[in-house]
Amino acid sequence: MNLILLFDDDFIDASRVRLTGRRLRHVTEVHRAAVGESLVVGIANGRIGRGTITRLDSESLEMDVSLDRDPPAALPLTLILALPRPKVLNRVIAGAASLGIKRIVLINAWRVEKSYWSSPRLSAENLRAQAILGLEQARDTVLPSIETRRLFRPFVEDELGAIAHGTRALVAHPHAREACPRDVREPVTLVIGPEGGFIEAEIVSLERIGFMPVTIGERILRVETAVPYLAARLY
Amino acid sequence: MNLILLFDDDFIDASRVRLTGRRLRHVTEVHRAAVGESLVVGIANGRIGRGTITRLDSESLEMDVSLDRDPPAALPLTLILALPRPKVLNRVIAGAASLGIKRIVLINAWRVEKSYWSSPRLSAENLRAQAILGLEQARDTVLPSIETRRLFRPFVEDELGAIAHGTRALVAHPHAREACPRDVREPVTLVIGPEGGFIEAEIVSLERIGFMPVTIGERILRVETAVPYLAARLY
Repeated sequence: MNLILLFDDDFIDASRVRLTGRRLRHVTEVHRAAVGESLVVGIANGRIGRGTITRLDSESLEMDVSLDRDPPAALPLTLILALPRPKVLNRVIAGAASLGIKRIVLINAWRVEKSYWSSPRLSAENLRAQAILGLEQARDTVLPSIETRRLFRPFVEDELGAIAHGTRALVAHPHAREACPRDVREPVTLVIGPEGGFIEAEIVSLERIGFMPVTIGERILRVETAVPYLAARLY
Repeated sequence: MNLILLFDDDFIDASRVRLTGRRLRHVTEVHRAAVGESLVVGIANGRIGRGTITRLDSESLEMDVSLDRDPPAALPLTLILALPRPKVLNRVIAGAASLGIKRIVLINAWRVEKSYWSSPRLSAENLRAQAILGLEQARDTVLPSIETRRLFRPFVEDELGAIAHGTRALVAHPHAREACPRDVREPVTLVIGPEGGFIEAEIVSLERIGFMPVTIGERILRVETAVPYLAARLY
């Protein structure tokens, strides 16, 4: 936790917060901070600054908060991701949030196992909690939007064109002929398939609405490796 | 497992292998392959091709192996990594292997917790097993060398200079002034610090032998995100 993310509910007056639970434990057990010390804080969807601890016991801590700068720039990348295995979903979301991705849509695909859709990790609460971990890691404050779409075809045919409008539309595909571009200076909508890849019909659907299949070479990467790899390659 | 990695011990004659255990289970439970089907295989540190299943029961499977191409190019990146938390070590090693990194040295640093060094995950067997998972994922065959060094100063003062000789020597450091270079066309030796970063004295030691501190911006990434991000940025 390189930044403590604060929410409106934490404020007990205009510039003072009271924290309990996970953030309190982190400050006492990891930072091992004491009264008088200051830590990096930021307001959800707002500015960043310092919080100086004014009171601390086993129940709660209070900080005087002073904010003086904006969060880091967002990555202009919309990520459309075939739903990963529940086991890796949390760290994929936290990783994407830490990279500055601000819109994530988790979609179905032929090779996504149906059981993945009943994972409790897909709850809005859990997805938000994982995104917060990513923001705290990267010292960002701006929460990504995370949506889910259980039907591939209606999503691609009715929604994805509008999402990708005005952006470079790419689908990462091991069998593509084009190499993934580098140092793109425009927003990108990037589709990443499931383990085992998209089936041909899915690639055709995506191509029909303007997505270009691109490859990063012979190596097939796990989704948690592919997301940061592609983010760095594109920007 | 996008490639089944084969070892000399697996061969029962010049072009036939017998597999049991993990690889057998993967072929039957994940690939759900049957006699007559062929899968991508590769010989450890050797070529890639197809294995056609000639016999299959609950105890073992046999394949006729035919090899016709070289593994993907290695990444000319030597990774010197402050020992990560045991919880993430396995996936950092598998991720680095999947990216094509062929030399990894796990080192100590001031902010590496001492207890990490007694993790059973540091056994040579486990590190090798994780590297194999990464190769199988990326369809590579060339095993990385993975070493450990428990003393920071002797390693940096007596060994690291020789390791980095003839390469671009970089240390990823959030507070660096220089931006991490892109599209480097030469071998790189990249040092990545622990959670919380290197202390100033460690950065000074690295600078003294020619390492340049570089930053990837305001965001502080977890090691499992930073490794693929930096690999893509450098190459």
